Amino acid sequence: MPLIPIVPLPSHSLPSQIFVFPSVPVCLQIFIPFSFSLSHTPNTLFLIMASSNGTTSGTGSPCGACKFLRRKCAPDCIFAPYFCSEQGPARFAAIHKVFGASNVSKLLLHIPAHERCEAVVTIAYEAQARIRDPVYGCVSHIFALQQQVHISFI
Amino acid sequence: MPLIPIVPLPSHSLPSQIFVFPSVPVCLQIFIPFSFSLSHTPNTLFLIMASSNGTTSGTGSPCGACKFLRRKCAPDCIFAPYFCSEQGPARFAAIHKVFGASNVSKLLLHIPAHERCEAVVTIAYEAQARIRDPVYGCVSHIFALQQQVHISFI
Repeated sequence: MPLIPIVPLPSHSLPSQIFVFPSVPVCLQIFIPFSFSLSHTPNTLFLIMASSNGTTSGTGSPCGACKFLRRKCAPDCIFAPYFCSEQGPARFAAIHKVFGASNVSKLLLHIPAHERCEAVVTIAYEAQARIRDPVYGCVSHIFALQQQVHISFI
Repeated sequence: MPLIPIVPLPSHSLPSQIFVFPSVPVCLQIFIPFSFSLSHTPNTLFLIMASSNGTTSGTGSPCGACKFLRRKCAPDCIFAPYFCSEQGPARFAAIHKVFGASNVSKLLLHIPAHERCEAVVTIAYEAQARIRDPVYGCVSHIFALQQQVHISFI
């Protein structure tokens, strides 16, 4: 499973535009049966991508989210493009536990389609971090990075 | 409203123990009618504390969470200790929108009581960040800090 570092843009970029994913433009443009998530070493957050042998919505099999929710997967299922891998149900389980399917669905519906892939990646990262560390969640990563920045400026 | 920087412990600390809140130990020990949240400048995450003139559960008035949910505030309300300020309903609204009251309630019930204050602070921070930036949420802060760390090591 390759680790693809997320590459920063110049520091004058807006927060929501700070990073692009140059190695995975397809992820940002079209829907493909990839599984992905954000992970991190002590220093860097990575976008993990893996080929998938999962199924997609519309082919008869439900997506990972609908499999987890034990419901019929509609052709226009908001989750299908992002949870169609074999790991889809497990990944969605974390999101469902922390955010709730309904909240994430509403959130995604208010985001332009071409930005939803990145939103799902960051939501999945936050959910996994909160399950690992129920008190701090991904804020522990922020604290750790602040400490590094603090040390580097001493 | 004072800004209280969160002070790092030595780098060999575990992620969930990296930071303590030395100026606000009372927040971690007993329940007080404070309002609090995490905010940040480009460099540092802060714990914002403000005196409250709000009400607490058990005095007849519902806590901010129950006010928002328009329900009776039970004496053992899980939210009451953390949303009893005047800003309580607004702060809870963000958490409710992003995580859902039920999910946060379940999460808090699985955390030891003395750690719930910090959990609520980090959950509120994540919720506010996700509302500000629906695509990246607080992960944009992680990206920005990674960029600073990257630059400082060049």
